[in-house]
Amino acid sequence: MNHILVIGAGRSASALINYLKENAEQEKWQIKLADFDISLAEEKAGNHPAVSCIQFDIFNSTQAKDEIAKADLVVSMLPARFHHLVAEVCVDLSKHLVTASYNNKDVAALSDIAKGQNTLILMECGLDPGIDHMTAMEVIDDVKEKNGKMLSFKSFTGGLIAPESDNNPWNYKFTWNPRNVVLAGQGTASFIRNNRYKYIPYHQLFKRLETFTFDKLGDFEGYPNRDSLSYRKVYDIQEIPTLLRGTLRRPGYSKAWDVFVQLGITDDNYEMEALDQLSHRDFLNAFLKYDEHKSIEDKLCEYTGIEKGSDAFNKIAWLGLFDDKPLPIEKGSPAQVMQAIMEQKMSLSPGDKDMIVMQHKFEYEIDGKKYEKVSSIVSYGEDESITAMAKTVGLPLGIAVKNILNGNINLRGVQVPTQKEIYQPILEELTKHNISITEEEREI
Amino acid sequence: MNHILVIGAGRSASALINYLKENAEQEKWQIKLADFDISLAEEKAGNHPAVSCIQFDIFNSTQAKDEIAKADLVVSMLPARFHHLVAEVCVDLSKHLVTASYNNKDVAALSDIAKGQNTLILMECGLDPGIDHMTAMEVIDDVKEKNGKMLSFKSFTGGLIAPESDNNPWNYKFTWNPRNVVLAGQGTASFIRNNRYKYIPYHQLFKRLETFTFDKLGDFEGYPNRDSLSYRKVYDIQEIPTLLRGTLRRPGYSKAWDVFVQLGITDDNYEMEALDQLSHRDFLNAFLKYDEHKSIEDKLCEYTGIEKGSDAFNKIAWLGLFDDKPLPIEKGSPAQVMQAIMEQKMSLSPGDKDMIVMQHKFEYEIDGKKYEKVSSIVSYGEDESITAMAKTVGLPLGIAVKNILNGNINLRGVQVPTQKEIYQPILEELTKHNISITEEEREI
Repeated sequence: MNHILVIGAGRSASALINYLKENAEQEKWQIKLADFDISLAEEKAGNHPAVSCIQFDIFNSTQAKDEIAKADLVVSMLPARFHHLVAEVCVDLSKHLVTASYNNKDVAALSDIAKGQNTLILMECGLDPGIDHMTAMEVIDDVKEKNGKMLSFKSFTGGLIAPESDNNPWNYKFTWNPRNVVLAGQGTASFIRNNRYKYIPYHQLFKRLETFTFDKLGDFEGYPNRDSLSYRKVYDIQEIPTLLRGTLRRPGYSKAWDVFVQLGITDDNYEMEALDQLSHRDFLNAFLKYDEHKSIEDKLCEYTGIEKGSDAFNKIAWLGLFDDKPLPIEKGSPAQVMQAIMEQKMSLSPGDKDMIVMQHKFEYEIDGKKYEKVSSIVSYGEDESITAMAKTVGLPLGIAVKNILNGNINLRGVQVPTQKEIYQPILEELTKHNISITEEEREI
Repeated sequence: MNHILVIGAGRSASALINYLKENAEQEKWQIKLADFDISLAEEKAGNHPAVSCIQFDIFNSTQAKDEIAKADLVVSMLPARFHHLVAEVCVDLSKHLVTASYNNKDVAALSDIAKGQNTLILMECGLDPGIDHMTAMEVIDDVKEKNGKMLSFKSFTGGLIAPESDNNPWNYKFTWNPRNVVLAGQGTASFIRNNRYKYIPYHQLFKRLETFTFDKLGDFEGYPNRDSLSYRKVYDIQEIPTLLRGTLRRPGYSKAWDVFVQLGITDDNYEMEALDQLSHRDFLNAFLKYDEHKSIEDKLCEYTGIEKGSDAFNKIAWLGLFDDKPLPIEKGSPAQVMQAIMEQKMSLSPGDKDMIVMQHKFEYEIDGKKYEKVSSIVSYGEDESITAMAKTVGLPLGIAVKNILNGNINLRGVQVPTQKEIYQPILEELTKHNISITEEEREI
């Protein structure tokens, strides 16, 4: 019997917990769901004979030690900033840990001690980060094995609404944390293109688009993500002349969103004044020049260069920014107001299906010949609760758990899934869950 | 005999120290200059019989207590973040403290204890903040005394190069901390206009200009400063419909500077890669789109909307951004590179004179009649060392010291110079040093 402790049983843990339940009997697992709100855990447990639940507080270090001591492996679904607390106890007690969050300095610092304790801390084992690493490394390792040379790698991912549930002018609904959608891209995007370093400030980001095409789904537009440069080291492709990672949206999204960026409406750094006295229209006007002779619509178009009745203008109008009705919240930053406005219009409805799209474009040279390979993954959600987002995060975690416990993954220390020993069994089993790669290779 | 302790004897303390020396005999002062680098203090002391010097470390709390205990009044010219350390000891030992830096939470929290200790902590007693408060409050208090009502207050200040030393296309040289010039305006500008709150993100700031005209000097352009709204409370004009503070530059500066802002070149939040391999031209290109068929000049114009040979284009060319020569530094953020490039071209030369320009535009109503009043201050430096900047910061400090020690200023607790008891004697004596206000009032 192996004991698995899952810390955090919120919505994002659903697909992971389902996978663990489905495999519990065959794999001889006892699963304990730990959450500060035990009712969340009990709801997910659903009277499954192999699952028990406890109320759990990560700041209660006695409880944390006791519960982790009883487990063989821990999965942490806590917010990323708490992982190092869990990791420290796990390393101390020689218990493996798996998370879907970005690795960080505090956790990375534990790697040597973890190795000494014969313990694996596997970070970034979800979708993005996670499946992106695994599918990238599968191609990169293959090129290396053939003594080839990587010339270019562009990797773009989007969490979007499936075509059958796509019924708003933004072609977008919130399928994950709305706050992160409003703040997406803040900072500077840095990447390399033909050996030239390139930097894009946030306020130019949504103007610097590339098109990505998916079979049956058609075109998407991609804008660069923050730090692409660090992936040269992560993927061990230090000399690659072109490396760019980014985010996918449906065409037209970025041009309309850029209007909000230009106005400063996505700023989360200050509290606005007297929001309780403002309508949606007044809120928009707070970011426009004072001019008593011009309409807000005219001022917006003049200031941001969009045209009345254009696609971008209509998207903004659809969100209600020109309306006279009061704002949904009475206190907060511009970004918080914008989030509240969008949540009223862009949340998933019952039955809505989401969609994950990921595309890697590689260029490489083998034996003097140059090739382009396009790898695409598309995954659909089942409904507004079992989302593609939850599945593509939860399944890699669950499959990693299985392969660690059954001894297929024997790496130790702090790892991300860039090594074949980790990514191969995970990608193999993901195809059985309809999360598979379509590849096209051609000589260029 | 009164003992004055001046902590920090760097360049910005010159005018203050000169004032204290000139008044030492008549006022019966003993002056002690304390600096971590005692040679700085000794240079300023210049064998004056009333001045002594010590090596001083603010983190040596025993020394701080000993030296402050021996003084009757302390002036801190340390960087702003150290003031609360000095203030705590001063309050503890009932010693008055004067600084030219912005008040902050840590210092403000000492106000009640300071009152109980019969001690004055006078913050913001330089130019901006300092003279701006004093000259604003003189008019605001006058309107209030006449039972008038403030309708509008715009206050703009600039530290610039005097016309006789103005010989570059930017009409600008560094007369204070170059780093602050490169980072100027970062954040969000918030103000109120005709009772409408307005917010301007940094990347729009240098497009939102107003013109200010000075007698003999002609036109300046002003862009809004960060938080104008908090001055409603500072000046006790909570109901004023229009309040805006800002920074003055010569016309054309902002349009050219905005090119750097649009490119992201003023960003101080990340280290650039491989700067040692880049020319000025490559540095500029890192912020432009990749296009092997277009020149950097063409890409810049296309991307930012300026024209080749335009005033903005020529300003950028004059700074050397199109040059093939190596960068002046090999490591740093874009803002640090930009600063190093500008320092080579825009530093004061021997004999250069700087200039402070400040203009307040008030509108108010008294007895049913509306008035506009324009108050202007212009002050010139003597050379590149005795700058207008140093004088307009140092003299208000020195005059405050005199009036606290001779009992004209009896307010206690943490204060800024918005009360008549403080600002009246300071403004009066400033006119004797040719720092005086020109006022024009007209009915509107």
